[in-house]
Amino acid sequence: MKEKVTIVKVGGAIVEDEKQLSQLLEDFSAIPGKKVLVHGGGRSATKIASSLGIESTMIDGRRVTDSEMLKVVTMVYGGLVNKNLVARLQAHQINAIGLTGADMDVLRAHRRPLVKKADGQTIDYGFVGDVERANGDVLHMLLDAGITPVMAPLTHDGQGNMLNTNADTIASETAKALAPYYDVTLIYSFEKKGVLSNPEDDDSVIPLITPSLFQQLVKEGTIGGGMIPKLENAFMAINSGVGRVIITLATALDGQQGTTIMEEPTKC
Amino acid sequence: MKEKVTIVKVGGAIVEDEKQLSQLLEDFSAIPGKKVLVHGGGRSATKIASSLGIESTMIDGRRVTDSEMLKVVTMVYGGLVNKNLVARLQAHQINAIGLTGADMDVLRAHRRPLVKKADGQTIDYGFVGDVERANGDVLHMLLDAGITPVMAPLTHDGQGNMLNTNADTIASETAKALAPYYDVTLIYSFEKKGVLSNPEDDDSVIPLITPSLFQQLVKEGTIGGGMIPKLENAFMAINSGVGRVIITLATALDGQQGTTIMEEPTKC
Repeated sequence: MKEKVTIVKVGGAIVEDEKQLSQLLEDFSAIPGKKVLVHGGGRSATKIASSLGIESTMIDGRRVTDSEMLKVVTMVYGGLVNKNLVARLQAHQINAIGLTGADMDVLRAHRRPLVKKADGQTIDYGFVGDVERANGDVLHMLLDAGITPVMAPLTHDGQGNMLNTNADTIASETAKALAPYYDVTLIYSFEKKGVLSNPEDDDSVIPLITPSLFQQLVKEGTIGGGMIPKLENAFMAINSGVGRVIITLATALDGQQGTTIMEEPTKC
Repeated sequence: MKEKVTIVKVGGAIVEDEKQLSQLLEDFSAIPGKKVLVHGGGRSATKIASSLGIESTMIDGRRVTDSEMLKVVTMVYGGLVNKNLVARLQAHQINAIGLTGADMDVLRAHRRPLVKKADGQTIDYGFVGDVERANGDVLHMLLDAGITPVMAPLTHDGQGNMLNTNADTIASETAKALAPYYDVTLIYSFEKKGVLSNPEDDDSVIPLITPSLFQQLVKEGTIGGGMIPKLENAFMAINSGVGRVIITLATALDGQQGTTIMEEPTKC
């Protein structure tokens, strides 16, 4: 049986608020066994960019990253947010190491090609990276030595450029890269208790979603909108060997709550 | 016989100028065997601090680091400068990893106590770290795996705070920490060709300085001023097992030029 590893993805809002951050550090530290933390940091980037007179442009919720904005996200994600998390985890006796995709060539990406929209408009997201390959070997080496990677939402292109990359993607690519070595649980912290069967009722958490139930829930219209790509992404991770994906509150990182996405249980 | 490792310390001026940086990356990549790069970044920090409306205060050439300046140096040294170096080295086929002292607890420091000057004035350098201990084990693990550490001038206090630390100190502490594992050469890049016997003559490089020659040169007045603490620091590294310290131009990293500081050659 493979050893367990837990990968936790937290958004920027959590790591940028002192009260929520303190709680997160306690909860993350309490997770037994080997683990990885993946973080965002968008609000800090927007704030510091604005102080530097650089305007943030978002298209469909994604940041347009020109060369000036790339400097900001490299500083803020790779430096400010990442290193503070590492220092704070060290104070919790977690031997953390901060990584971007460039470090040890962990996540190699290519710059996103121009996107042609239905209305004919062409979008250039700039220095945004779509992941090509992840290096599980070096992460395995670190985890094996008792070290906890803390991953910033940045990759590189192998040509000397850093690239801005969505933290959810960093988390799923890391999970897939570790799947050959470990029994991987990928936890996405979320603003709700999990995937809800009734969006009006915060307690209507669907505890388990398998591929067949997912098909049914989509057909019924119980699940829609932004939740569909999120779950499709989770199933892609499952199909690449990740044991389970859990969507839950940032205050429920023990994996006992929220919605678990996994393969159909095998019938005996 | 121990395997060789070369530690190169470069100042901010070199990594912040594109032409010099390109040359440095070529020269550093050409160094055979295992190696470590230690960098500064003070000019970028001053520039970005200024854009953010934060004034830089220097006392005796050292930056006073209040909490706002700590954020700036954490961003700039640990993020912008460090990650760009890592990405650029990856493009040179060097499998680099960016580290601060907080990462893997590599360099633990304490906040510098208040400094009482001869004139009675008390100086608080703020979040500036004096190194307490370096962890050669984890650096050895990385080097052994063919990974090249790139170290930013930042440490941490184990209590959750990052600390600003002089890059020369990061280099000498790293060299000392690696001495039990490797035959260490520590190269300080310098604005002159080496230690000069005549400050007016740029070619009057003293090729080798041993402890006895150092005593003599100081006594004669050939060496004075800021060079004395620099050389004392080099001898401290030698006394802690570092093989040799070389002071040379950033364009002469092959260790064949400049001034070599080492123990007296043993007499047969």
